[in-house]
Formats: sequence, C-alpha cells, structure tokens
Amino acid sequence: MSTITYQVTGMSCGHCEKAVSEELSALPGVSAVIAKADTGLVTVESSEPLSDEAVRAAVDEAGYEVTGRA
Amino acid sequence: MSTITYQVTGMSCGHCEKAVSEELSALPGVSAVIAKADTGLVTVESSEPLSDEAVRAAVDEAGYEVTGRA
Repeated sequence: MSTITYQVTGMSCGHCEKAVSEELSALPGVSAVIAKADTGLVTVESSEPLSDEAVRAAVDEAGYEVTGRA
Repeated sequence: MSTITYQVTGMSCGHCEKAVSEELSALPGVSAVIAKADTGLVTVESSEPLSDEAVRAAVDEAGYEVTGRA
C-alpha cells in the first residue's frame, strides 16, 4: 500500500475537490483519494506506488496542477 | 420575455457557475442563464417573469445563496 500527498493549485470549492478525486480514483490501483481545496493537499492511497507523471496527468485532466509532493 | 440579474454569494469557480446554471435552467420557462463566479452575478432569461422565491430555491438547491437583485 502506498499513500502520497501532493500539493495541487487551483481548487476553490467542493466541486473542484470532487473533480480531482474522480480523475485520480480512475487510476489503476487507487483505493482512496482525499482532496482539500482549502489547503490544496491531495492524498492518494494506492495498492502500488503511482508514478508522479500519472498523477500529474490525471490532475491536469481535471483542470488543476500538481506543484509537487507535500 | 423577462431578464433579471441576481446577486449570488458563494460561487468560486466554473463548476459553481455550472451548478447554479443547471438548477436555474430547470425552472419552467427559463431560456438562458449566465452565471459569473467572479462577480457573483447571475442573469436569467425567461419567457415569463420568475418569482424571486423560485429563483432563491433553485440557487439554494445548488448550494449557493441569492442576496438580492443586482
């Protein structure tokens, strides 16, 4: 099991959190996502470590940007 | 045809605009809605004048609040 927290910019509300969570939840092996607009922190739990590239691409697809790991 | 602009609080992004627009668009007679998060202004075009109560209820259902007509 792998749990990594990322810093994401641009989330401003619960809809944004949901959009990010839905994209990340669709990645293979992801079992849980917690996205918080107020802090910009997104924690992803997965069965295997995810590549930063896959996470960045999913967040980008939702319309936001990963600035790094928190 | 009636066009009224309301002041709405709480919209922070495009998702919020969409949520408000979708709720208002579902009201009978509504032909167009323009919601802007940056100003909080929501303009509703309808075939007959809408009651403020109906507009308030729809915006509330979306999770936001009408503070008055603009």
